[in-house]
Amino acid sequence: MHPGSWHATIGKPKSVDLAPLPITLPDVEEGAAMPGGFRAGGLAAGIKPSGRPDLGVIATTGESAAVAAVFTRNQVVAAPIRISRAHLNATEVTGAGKFGWADAIVATAGSANAATGEDGDTDQAEVGEALAALLHTQAERTLALSTGMIGVRLPVSKVKEGLGRLVPTLAATEEGLRAVAAAIMTTDTKIKLATTSVEMPGPDGDPVKVTVSGIAKGVGMIHPRMATMLSVILTDAGVPPATLHALLAPIVQRTWNQISVDGDTSTNDTVFLLASGASKASVAPVSHEAIVLGQAIEAVARSLARQQAADGEGASTLITCQVSGAADDHDARAIARSVVSSNLLKAAVHGRDPNWGRVASAAGNARLPEEQLLEAAGLHPAEAAPRAGRAPELDIDKLRIAIAGTLVFDGAPLPFDRDAVRKAMDAPEVLIRLDLALGDGLGEAFGCDLTEAYVVENAEYTT
Amino acid sequence: MHPGSWHATIGKPKSVDLAPLPITLPDVEEGAAMPGGFRAGGLAAGIKPSGRPDLGVIATTGESAAVAAVFTRNQVVAAPIRISRAHLNATEVTGAGKFGWADAIVATAGSANAATGEDGDTDQAEVGEALAALLHTQAERTLALSTGMIGVRLPVSKVKEGLGRLVPTLAATEEGLRAVAAAIMTTDTKIKLATTSVEMPGPDGDPVKVTVSGIAKGVGMIHPRMATMLSVILTDAGVPPATLHALLAPIVQRTWNQISVDGDTSTNDTVFLLASGASKASVAPVSHEAIVLGQAIEAVARSLARQQAADGEGASTLITCQVSGAADDHDARAIARSVVSSNLLKAAVHGRDPNWGRVASAAGNARLPEEQLLEAAGLHPAEAAPRAGRAPELDIDKLRIAIAGTLVFDGAPLPFDRDAVRKAMDAPEVLIRLDLALGDGLGEAFGCDLTEAYVVENAEYTT
Repeated sequence: MHPGSWHATIGKPKSVDLAPLPITLPDVEEGAAMPGGFRAGGLAAGIKPSGRPDLGVIATTGESAAVAAVFTRNQVVAAPIRISRAHLNATEVTGAGKFGWADAIVATAGSANAATGEDGDTDQAEVGEALAALLHTQAERTLALSTGMIGVRLPVSKVKEGLGRLVPTLAATEEGLRAVAAAIMTTDTKIKLATTSVEMPGPDGDPVKVTVSGIAKGVGMIHPRMATMLSVILTDAGVPPATLHALLAPIVQRTWNQISVDGDTSTNDTVFLLASGASKASVAPVSHEAIVLGQAIEAVARSLARQQAADGEGASTLITCQVSGAADDHDARAIARSVVSSNLLKAAVHGRDPNWGRVASAAGNARLPEEQLLEAAGLHPAEAAPRAGRAPELDIDKLRIAIAGTLVFDGAPLPFDRDAVRKAMDAPEVLIRLDLALGDGLGEAFGCDLTEAYVVENAEYTT
Repeated sequence: MHPGSWHATIGKPKSVDLAPLPITLPDVEEGAAMPGGFRAGGLAAGIKPSGRPDLGVIATTGESAAVAAVFTRNQVVAAPIRISRAHLNATEVTGAGKFGWADAIVATAGSANAATGEDGDTDQAEVGEALAALLHTQAERTLALSTGMIGVRLPVSKVKEGLGRLVPTLAATEEGLRAVAAAIMTTDTKIKLATTSVEMPGPDGDPVKVTVSGIAKGVGMIHPRMATMLSVILTDAGVPPATLHALLAPIVQRTWNQISVDGDTSTNDTVFLLASGASKASVAPVSHEAIVLGQAIEAVARSLARQQAADGEGASTLITCQVSGAADDHDARAIARSVVSSNLLKAAVHGRDPNWGRVASAAGNARLPEEQLLEAAGLHPAEAAPRAGRAPELDIDKLRIAIAGTLVFDGAPLPFDRDAVRKAMDAPEVLIRLDLALGDGLGEAFGCDLTEAYVVENAEYTT
């Protein structure tokens, strides 16, 4: 069955069709069409010495928006996350800091406001109070995002002065939302935007257009390269906060929890999803509309996550790993994530080396995440606990691997045209495709190649 | 309490004494004194095209040796591991493939004999039968180690021809053991040896000298750089196999499970511990002698693990992280391992950047290992299961961090002489020292800096 040698000709593989997984999400554009009910803007407040934009605000135009949030699982948590949790909790006690209501988000870049002790909390509270006063709302209806140097305090007076200039200019336009996306950039080389729209029933039953737009910034690095993964998604659908969180949590597990640049999770990672209701399309907790809206949100999240992975520090290539035939989706995602996280595989892709041995070994090293993440992804707590941290099911004799469209392993090495595969790998995106032949589980993950530029940038060669 | 800013002068830290942890193990030398009851040798059998040594054998001189083994937790497991498990199981059914009896180990370099399908198992069995015939023992009393290219078959006839030349020359000498260490080198730049001796009561109650010596090869990389973590430790103490395994398993958790070069676990990682009994010192299951012998074995294992981390691919600096004040030792080890595994921290050490933010963030990202590893480290199964994959206890307000001897964080950033710390980091070993002020837990981990050389070597720039 497995004639073995790398060098021997071993006949026809079982199948040459290890095609990319069909993704059935709505199409997205890399734009930032502003959903109804929101206004936004950004400017340079002087937090960054460079004078680049470093302050952004998103605010509602009418009623408070429903909010769902997912925060970093790093135990060292920045002040903006602590205050956002407290404020969400104050507006919706059943949400335990994960969902609630808000009128505005303030985003700062240049200081992470992390590991700054009690002063950091005081500083962040003062910023929230200033924003609330300018918007004539309560401080508990403000949220915060931050990225930048760890251990550096927010320059509160500069931020307050900037808010005073910025709030009167907030605009319900694409330009406004783009300005926030620009203000949170640090080591990002490209602005990250995604937008889509779907039709849903309005109050009188006629279809209305619902817009979902998101912004994001780079991934994986912290002080002093000042990256962090931040994202805000806005929609004008009307969704209760608890429903919004029930939609968001599993989407985050399938998108942002499936990207890796360097395996380091920042102290500030945050995703906010806000729903204004301005479109007059209402989404009930368990409904067809919830499914439609969820797919639009997931399409935007997936696009932003892919943009983040592709723009990883020093990266030249987006690595996509898609897994089929796993025992279930949790197993498939764990294996895909392990493959894109392997330093050896990342270096091999950088060198255009179709190194299936590293793919197989990384698959063998995969482990399911901790139980909280399994639960967030939809697994029942009674099933999540015993599986947490365990290896997914894998049988090397059944494993098939294709690299950049060519099947290279089928339970045993296959002969293949090495130069042709190298050429196919010389592209902006390289697809590593695995099939486990064990079940119906599907999953994907996104990463980037490991380059000398990553080392040089992060070694901060000043000596 | 925490005056905050990186730049402000904030008075005296709580303590400037975050000294290196006192290690109370016996002293070791980087030698290979041959323990009684063993003979060994190595030569070039032609597996490697380069003509470098690639075949080693260790054999007993008299009775079979008791054996304990720890294998890779990668699910993609090489043929030499599959056959070693089966043979150990055949000689001691209660050992479940983890301990038993053996007369010889055959080590090959150049082919990992991994992902080679059923042919790989057949090849490995044929090698074991040839070795057993030459030594007049049973194939079930042979074990195997292998490192090299994944997916490449063992050239069985060359290996058998090499064994025919090698077995008659096996010598009960340091040179013999060194020759095996040389034969398993691949990308290692240095041979890895460690030896120590302790006094224990002999059969008539008078003290006898017991020798413990180990050899090892490089860590962390696989095909085509051909590294893998392999080690063999020999002792002339007399120890029942089950006792030997009870000693070895927690030591592996404290040493080899605490090193990281690139986070990739190979398909072939193996540690064998063999006890010949030739010294006539007998070690009972739970005894003072077991403790004394365990410390000697741990001293050898720790030295070999440090040598492996220091010789990681492309590495220029050994990174040691020591953690005190954790809730328990499991927490301390998890945090230490997370710190030395962070790509960002590894790059910072390469650049001599005293980047405490990356240390704090890596500590916050730590997760306890899966339950099998917690159990192997000594935790009761009922305690291990609910803790597996969870974050260790950590309170950023109590955390202290010293880099290369200087306290730089004490619940909040401390002012420090950046240039002086940079200079202190310009050394072959950099110590990152953390205290959590939560309990009595201690732990350490070893890694190496991330360099451009790592990327270049592993990208295989041939295009």
